[in-house]
Amino acid sequence: MSGVGQPLARYAACKRAGDYLFLSGVIAVDPARGRVVGGFADLPEAVRAGLGETGEFSIDVRQGPVLAQSWFVLDRIRAILAEQGGTMDDVCRLVQYFRDLRDYPLYARVRRSFFPGAPPVSTVVEVSAMLPTAEVLLEVEATAWLPRAAQGRP
Amino acid sequence: MSGVGQPLARYAACKRAGDYLFLSGVIAVDPARGRVVGGFADLPEAVRAGLGETGEFSIDVRQGPVLAQSWFVLDRIRAILAEQGGTMDDVCRLVQYFRDLRDYPLYARVRRSFFPGAPPVSTVVEVSAMLPTAEVLLEVEATAWLPRAAQGRP
Amino acid sequence: MSGVGQPLARYAACKRAGDYLFLSGVIAVDPARGRVVGGFADLPEAVRAGLGETGEFSIDVRQGPVLAQSWFVLDRIRAILAEQGGTMDDVCRLVQYFRDLRDYPLYARVRRSFFPGAPPVSTVVEVSAMLPTAEVLLEVEATAWLPRAAQGRP
Amino acid sequence: MSGVGQPLARYAACKRAGDYLFLSGVIAVDPARGRVVGGFADLPEAVRAGLGETGEFSIDVRQGPVLAQSWFVLDRIRAILAEQGGTMDDVCRLVQYFRDLRDYPLYARVRRSFFPGAPPVSTVVEVSAMLPTAEVLLEVEATAWLPRAAQGRP
Amino acid sequence: MSGVGQPLARYAACKRAGDYLFLSGVIAVDPARGRVVGGFADLPEAVRAGLGETGEFSIDVRQGPVLAQSWFVLDRIRAILAEQGGTMDDVCRLVQYFRDLRDYPLYARVRRSFFPGAPPVSTVVEVSAMLPTAEVLLEVEATAWLPRAAQGRP
Amino acid sequence: MSGVGQPLARYAACKRAGDYLFLSGVIAVDPARGRVVGGFADLPEAVRAGLGETGEFSIDVRQGPVLAQSWFVLDRIRAILAEQGGTMDDVCRLVQYFRDLRDYPLYARVRRSFFPGAPPVSTVVEVSAMLPTAEVLLEVEATAWLPRAAQGRP
Amino acid sequence: MSGVGQPLARYAACKRAGDYLFLSGVIAVDPARGRVVGGFADLPEAVRAGLGETGEFSIDVRQGPVLAQSWFVLDRIRAILAEQGGTMDDVCRLVQYFRDLRDYPLYARVRRSFFPGAPPVSTVVEVSAMLPTAEVLLEVEATAWLPRAAQGRP
Amino acid sequence: MSGVGQPLARYAACKRAGDYLFLSGVIAVDPARGRVVGGFADLPEAVRAGLGETGEFSIDVRQGPVLAQSWFVLDRIRAILAEQGGTMDDVCRLVQYFRDLRDYPLYARVRRSFFPGAPPVSTVVEVSAMLPTAEVLLEVEATAWLPRAAQGRP
Amino acid sequence: MSGVGQPLARYAACKRAGDYLFLSGVIAVDPARGRVVGGFADLPEAVRAGLGETGEFSIDVRQGPVLAQSWFVLDRIRAILAEQGGTMDDVCRLVQYFRDLRDYPLYARVRRSFFPGAPPVSTVVEVSAMLPTAEVLLEVEATAWLPRAAQGRP
Amino acid sequence: MSGVGQPLARYAACKRAGDYLFLSGVIAVDPARGRVVGGFADLPEAVRAGLGETGEFSIDVRQGPVLAQSWFVLDRIRAILAEQGGTMDDVCRLVQYFRDLRDYPLYARVRRSFFPGAPPVSTVVEVSAMLPTAEVLLEVEATAWLPRAAQGRP
Amino acid sequence: MSGVGQPLARYAACKRAGDYLFLSGVIAVDPARGRVVGGFADLPEAVRAGLGETGEFSIDVRQGPVLAQSWFVLDRIRAILAEQGGTMDDVCRLVQYFRDLRDYPLYARVRRSFFPGAPPVSTVVEVSAMLPTAEVLLEVEATAWLPRAAQGRP
Amino acid sequence: MSGVGQPLARYAACKRAGDYLFLSGVIAVDPARGRVVGGFADLPEAVRAGLGETGEFSIDVRQGPVLAQSWFVLDRIRAILAEQGGTMDDVCRLVQYFRDLRDYPLYARVRRSFFPGAPPVSTVVEVSAMLPTAEVLLEVEATAWLPRAAQGRP
Repeated sequence: MSGVGQPLARYAACKRAGDYLFLSGVIAVDPARGRVVGGFADLPEAVRAGLGETGEFSIDVRQGPVLAQSWFVLDRIRAILAEQGGTMDDVCRLVQYFRDLRDYPLYARVRRSFFPGAPPVSTVVEVSAMLPTAEVLLEVEATAWLPRAAQGRP
Repeated sequence: MSGVGQPLARYAACKRAGDYLFLSGVIAVDPARGRVVGGFADLPEAVRAGLGETGEFSIDVRQGPVLAQSWFVLDRIRAILAEQGGTMDDVCRLVQYFRDLRDYPLYARVRRSFFPGAPPVSTVVEVSAMLPTAEVLLEVEATAWLPRAAQGRP
Repeated sequence: MSGVGQPLARYAACKRAGDYLFLSGVIAVDPARGRVVGGFADLPEAVRAGLGETGEFSIDVRQGPVLAQSWFVLDRIRAILAEQGGTMDDVCRLVQYFRDLRDYPLYARVRRSFFPGAPPVSTVVEVSAMLPTAEVLLEVEATAWLPRAAQGRP
Repeated sequence: MSGVGQPLARYAACKRAGDYLFLSGVIAVDPARGRVVGGFADLPEAVRAGLGETGEFSIDVRQGPVLAQSWFVLDRIRAILAEQGGTMDDVCRLVQYFRDLRDYPLYARVRRSFFPGAPPVSTVVEVSAMLPTAEVLLEVEATAWLPRAAQGRP
Repeated sequence: MSGVGQPLARYAACKRAGDYLFLSGVIAVDPARGRVVGGFADLPEAVRAGLGETGEFSIDVRQGPVLAQSWFVLDRIRAILAEQGGTMDDVCRLVQYFRDLRDYPLYARVRRSFFPGAPPVSTVVEVSAMLPTAEVLLEVEATAWLPRAAQGRP
Repeated sequence: MSGVGQPLARYAACKRAGDYLFLSGVIAVDPARGRVVGGFADLPEAVRAGLGETGEFSIDVRQGPVLAQSWFVLDRIRAILAEQGGTMDDVCRLVQYFRDLRDYPLYARVRRSFFPGAPPVSTVVEVSAMLPTAEVLLEVEATAWLPRAAQGRP
Repeated sequence: MSGVGQPLARYAACKRAGDYLFLSGVIAVDPARGRVVGGFADLPEAVRAGLGETGEFSIDVRQGPVLAQSWFVLDRIRAILAEQGGTMDDVCRLVQYFRDLRDYPLYARVRRSFFPGAPPVSTVVEVSAMLPTAEVLLEVEATAWLPRAAQGRP
Repeated sequence: MSGVGQPLARYAACKRAGDYLFLSGVIAVDPARGRVVGGFADLPEAVRAGLGETGEFSIDVRQGPVLAQSWFVLDRIRAILAEQGGTMDDVCRLVQYFRDLRDYPLYARVRRSFFPGAPPVSTVVEVSAMLPTAEVLLEVEATAWLPRAAQGRP
Repeated sequence: MSGVGQPLARYAACKRAGDYLFLSGVIAVDPARGRVVGGFADLPEAVRAGLGETGEFSIDVRQGPVLAQSWFVLDRIRAILAEQGGTMDDVCRLVQYFRDLRDYPLYARVRRSFFPGAPPVSTVVEVSAMLPTAEVLLEVEATAWLPRAAQGRP
Repeated sequence: MSGVGQPLARYAACKRAGDYLFLSGVIAVDPARGRVVGGFADLPEAVRAGLGETGEFSIDVRQGPVLAQSWFVLDRIRAILAEQGGTMDDVCRLVQYFRDLRDYPLYARVRRSFFPGAPPVSTVVEVSAMLPTAEVLLEVEATAWLPRAAQGRP
Repeated sequence: MSGVGQPLARYAACKRAGDYLFLSGVIAVDPARGRVVGGFADLPEAVRAGLGETGEFSIDVRQGPVLAQSWFVLDRIRAILAEQGGTMDDVCRLVQYFRDLRDYPLYARVRRSFFPGAPPVSTVVEVSAMLPTAEVLLEVEATAWLPRAAQGRP
Repeated sequence: MSGVGQPLARYAACKRAGDYLFLSGVIAVDPARGRVVGGFADLPEAVRAGLGETGEFSIDVRQGPVLAQSWFVLDRIRAILAEQGGTMDDVCRLVQYFRDLRDYPLYARVRRSFFPGAPPVSTVVEVSAMLPTAEVLLEVEATAWLPRAAQGRP
């Protein structure tokens, strides 16, 4: 398993069992810097405009964190799947935890761009807190169906 | 997929992946009216008495919401499974989210009537909130095992 | 199914569906006494020292509950798997609910001793409450991959 | 006055004044053990099943306290009345204090069994606390009409 | 007993015991519609102006609920007494429960119109909640003295 | 009725109905000054020492308010009864409302001195607030049995 | 500028700029005594009855503060305008801050008596606090149009 | 003044004073129905799509209220100005009160469509509450410069 | 308009309308760095000592934020006025919003140094929050009178 | 050092340094049973009556914990001093921490019996919590002056 | 010991033990009037100006209490030391308790004037409450070194 | 006194009085940078591993702050003592203030490494806050016995 799926600690980023690939809950922690993604400034330049950055400070300071974390988390799931030979279309199930469901509409906008086709099943709840710190606004647990035969794997 | 499993928005009500059928978290929102189920009055007449409606206002106004939502959610899961050629006996796993665990005993009474045989595995937690509004008292995510061969499907 | 996997009530402790074994969310309730595990005193003597009991009252009274529940819950999952012919290595996915995430570091220490090899995927969230009472500090839902062929079962 | 109507302290369990019998507010404290009734285990075996004990730990631990206290309190009122030569039919007025009105439906179920005939007038409010401790979930003040002539008393 | 004193559920709206008439706590629930009285719109047209409706939305939306409930509750007590051959002058004792004592001045204004003569004794407390729902702002328990002889009853 | 039973406003301090005397809920408001009793300084000098004034500021400032209000309220009930030709022995029923039940032990000590003989029946609850202001710590509603014949009244 | 418009501290009570007169936010602080107006007792005798004093302690202690402050504040604005050669009819704009909007209906009643003719534009919001202390219930900022020509001023 | 600027109660919707037009704080109350605007359903059909209605229930139920109120309030200011012979370009100053500043980004999006040219000065604060009810999410006070000469008015 | 009055986003820093200059509410955001002013370290060296920096960490860490923001905001108003050909003496009206009025005394000390002569009218309220983030402690909206004739402008 | 001064863990119960004896903060934990003292039942029979046990359940259940802990803590200080050859008269300084200062009057009554002569200096504060658990109501740190010469020690 | 060090109750204001003088925690209670110091008005006229009284009501009402209590407490410590033949220079240790650490900067300013030379060691914490009432903002416990030989005492 | 004991402000880091050395309460503020110690990254590399750094982000981010502050505070006490010619063995008394006693077990682990021999007496309480900011998790006040003779000092 290469670096993109490297967990922050002692648990697997993903694990294949039979024809399914299970992923750990993904949060927006930048492994290179060991920091929670805090806003547009933590994303690649090319991504920011498409995510809805307005340039108005009062707006970006509020919408930036959840938009940036949403993109980061889904992009990381995509990367893990790619490493395993899959794509977002292989995701069959998502459980999404939020710290504040008022963030859901912004997340939903970002998710739509990651699942342009038929979307997976989805469960969304608001929980009290997530690891590692209170800056984490959402966590996504994904499950994918990657039948070995179809992928020509051993 | 016919109407009963129609999601409120951009996510799948259920998704088959291999021999399993994954369902999105189900809440008690009446798709016809776009309203959260609020009490006995939102259920079919035939169901109400069996659910424990007492006719005493002070009691029904308190127990009605959770009883009605419990029935609605489990009945919807049954309908989705039926569309896919399955029954409640095929459910192998339930995760149940509540806004207030004091509602659990009433839910458990309703669930028993939906699983008269061997029950599925079950996880129950109380979360801070669920979509779409604070009127939602519980959400149930179900997973079913529907092997293709056994059902004679392509 | 023998006694160790006996649920407290009307749900299955585990359920096999295809090559997977699903477990209900496990909490630290001692079935013999119908009581939530409260501290070191509720564990077998041989386990306590290894878990970090210090003998200093002010410390053990604080760390005891979560350490003891962590051990109890994971030990019970191990026992259920053993009954089904599996081991902790077969666990492919864990969802862990906490009442207070400040308990996580102590839980993580215990979990490491149960998964000395490659760990499963993991999701951790803090929820408002769990069944049956407020004394419950954590709940763990596990999924295992136990292919029938490999186990020589019918 | 014999033992059943013995107050916990310096106030009368009941007091006759003219044709009326006034009762002190009754709470579920077991005088023999000086403990607040905590659940089914504090009731006579014969009573428990009829009260709705399910044997499912998560349910009984929640519904047990209010069901047991409801039965205990009303049974004690019945005993005090019996000592004075009356029955529950002689009760003309009830004031019922709850710590949490969500407990009302369960109380109402128990009360119905104590007043199978024409019920007395009733007032129900939720208060902040009652004596002696926070474990007390409800208190019932009853007034009965026991005309002396009708009872052949001096 | 005719319709006006019909309780919402299993308790007596009033009960005669000797020369006294005891009334259950009365709340402002419209029995015909099974709804808590919410404002001026729920009262007969003729009553509204006299109660202090101003026509200014911001004011009526605040003062309407308690003024309307106050009138409804006292008017219902009057009706129950009339059914029993009494009048408001026969009321000897009132216990009045409020959810918020800031509502008391408005209630007091309404009560004065129901007791133009010598008023009964009165106790007023603020409680945490009342049946059936949080929309209930006040509850009044009344006791009346209706000696049989004076009324020529059996 | 003379001055001692003069209510602060439009309700009766007491009302005779048949052989019973009903009293309004009594609070510790000094009618002469229109102020809530605040501590030992508001009581007659002769009463203070017997009530438990210690002379230590930190103690008297905490215990003074409830001790003084307890004495004031019970003394006022005694005065109202005396005006009607009765004594504390005629009290058959007390309902006592507290803002904080931690004040109960001090009140109980005072009450004992007012009821040296057989005490009346008693109900005690903690409510959210009482009239007129938050300084009011307790309110006592008393009912007395004063049969006309026994008192030689018309 | 004479005494009535004397601010409590270093800011102008009013300031003319062109044809407009701007007033500082006015609160009900009696400059002579340096105290916040607390109730009817702080107003001139002649004003009190007209403001709605009832003589019932429990009512006046609740409604007195906001009625008295409303009158005081608006009367002060009138006095400042009079000093500048204007009247309440010249007020073109009011911004009214409340600590608790439940006080608005009482304020509105008072304001109507100060603006019998065409009223000014009005904005009303509830804020967390105002200067100088928490006893301040409302603050009113007024702007008036006093064209110099029309007033024959230099 | 015609109907659009009709206030809900006794204050002016706008008032001309010299060359300025002052407007009362505007909230989203539909005068025809006397109800606070609650979501997209309360707006004209033609407006809804442009405002960002998505058709996904969980999103529209959250974003609908503030988007609809924002449009309603600014559209009403435009109507009042039009009645006075002005346009949005004449607005020189806005004060905007929110109940929750997390709503600001959505409001800002709507406002931009009303002020395509040079925007007015702006002040934005979050307050505790506004009239008439807690459903009101924002209030806007506008001031416009409408010199008489330029408009050819008397 | 030059840089000093450049708003953070889509609204005007100031707008002339007739003889008045309206300013948007000013907060202490450093436009160069897009950060809220956090303490003495964000001010020019020459200003800090005069503002009351003590060098004692525990004191400066508490008083620094409000002193620095007060200076920054008033200095910015001065700069905007200067750009428009005015001075602080031209300010006729201030509305000052605070997040915590305990900060007012420190602000008042700073303001005095900006208005050595006759001060403008002033309104001060505490609100729940301001844009853009919770670090903002105060916001000041100023209005100035800058008659064109007096300034020799077109 | 003998058993009475045995700390619960790794710190000294007392330490002599020069002519002073320093004691660790003492709490009411019974070392034999490792439990916090909970009420009269945890004290020697001979002590209970003198401490103010009344036999009335509602009172003893409230006053018992602090009275018992007060006695236990001061008695333990006395025992530690005795072991070191001192008495309560040698205590020169006390710092007393409470979880709730409403408990102070009861503590003060107990302390008086331990210091019949000239009392030591005293500091009393209410803190948020103490070790080991929330059941601990008070902690007392004592310092004593035990000059070696006077005690004939080496 | 003369009057200045007279405690409010049964504890010593100070106690000599060896070469040290221990003082009880000092709070700002005026022993003559038995009242907590509330502001500048409770101090000697000569002291007030030096403490920072500004004459602006809104400021003095906020800063007065802590400034006055700080001066009162430290002045009292000085008086107790003077009675014992010492000065503030002999203080070697201070523990300072605050109810709100936002008061610390003002206290520190006052303390500096009492310790112009080398200051003592200092500990500062915020606690939940102090005796006797919530008006007490700070308490200071001082320890002084007053060697007997140096003072020529027996 | 050299640099290590340099206080942050105007109070002494330590003060000798007779044979005792008093230390001010020590908190974990790095004097060089004027910042509160925030985690492992603020400690010398050599210390971190021994303190329990795990490398797992979710754990270190939670345990790091208190472990690092505990080490920093105790190390600073050791340095101050060393400057005065003493060691940790000379400490006779510790008072330890925590913001959250759940941090105590981690602190205790660190403290044990600083006092391998006989430990000093210890008092531990949880307070509401400490200087200078909310990031401070604990404060330790130490007293040491350093007799001059034994150290060969003047």
